[in-house]
Amino acid sequence: MIEQLSRTEAMAMLAARGDACLGCIVDDEPYVVPMHYVLEGEYAYLHSLPGRKIDGMRASPRVCLQVQEVRSEFRWRSVQAFGDFEEIEDEAEKDRVLRLLFARFPRLTPADAVRRDGRASAPPIVFRIRVDRVTGLREG
Amino acid sequence: MIEQLSRTEAMAMLAARGDACLGCIVDDEPYVVPMHYVLEGEYAYLHSLPGRKIDGMRASPRVCLQVQEVRSEFRWRSVQAFGDFEEIEDEAEKDRVLRLLFARFPRLTPADAVRRDGRASAPPIVFRIRVDRVTGLREG
Repeated sequence: MIEQLSRTEAMAMLAARGDACLGCIVDDEPYVVPMHYVLEGEYAYLHSLPGRKIDGMRASPRVCLQVQEVRSEFRWRSVQAFGDFEEIEDEAEKDRVLRLLFARFPRLTPADAVRRDGRASAPPIVFRIRVDRVTGLREG
Repeated sequence: MIEQLSRTEAMAMLAARGDACLGCIVDDEPYVVPMHYVLEGEYAYLHSLPGRKIDGMRASPRVCLQVQEVRSEFRWRSVQAFGDFEEIEDEAEKDRVLRLLFARFPRLTPADAVRRDGRASAPPIVFRIRVDRVTGLREG
């Protein structure tokens, strides 16, 4: 029996988790990449190195965050959250969001920052997504 | 140290796994949903009940399959496979693909077929995606 989640249940699941598949549109193609996020109210906060997905979202800001929690084949929940990419340019707000992300995911920094060639990485892009629509399903 | 996967490594990982995030475009928005698939050669085979994602892919056939394998925070692989949605209409081929999917994922059928209201579900949509571009990253 598959049932829909209420908006409250779906937002609570989004807030509790922090790992999503982010879907965006890059060069007119769907583009999906695993990302970490922190939810505050109706905003998901994320950071990324510059690259294709950032270029894509700057050109086409609509995105979908898909989050799932699988306990067994017949006991799972899945949420889709939709919203627009909004880049955060204010330095104080960028610092606040990076501190929030690193406090939640303390081991993200080195994994994201160290490139194979050992060069210092580019400054991170910080952005938020205001969740303006959310849907969810549950089984079990 | 994050490294790119070769095409051979990325296709081998796609073949070995069977769970993906499927990204498509529905009503001009990115749409991401977890899906099972079986890879045969360069084709990923999938099935679904009719619904928004099928309507979306019929109108806008470009899709992205994102597959990941996380052993630890610093030991993971991630693959993006791009291709076009191709609906399979031939009944014999539909049967062959459904048998292939149910052999690989024997418990999928009831989870996909049983609706909350107990009605018999609609006949499944069967489709394939020819992977015409694949990229992958690995850490550790």
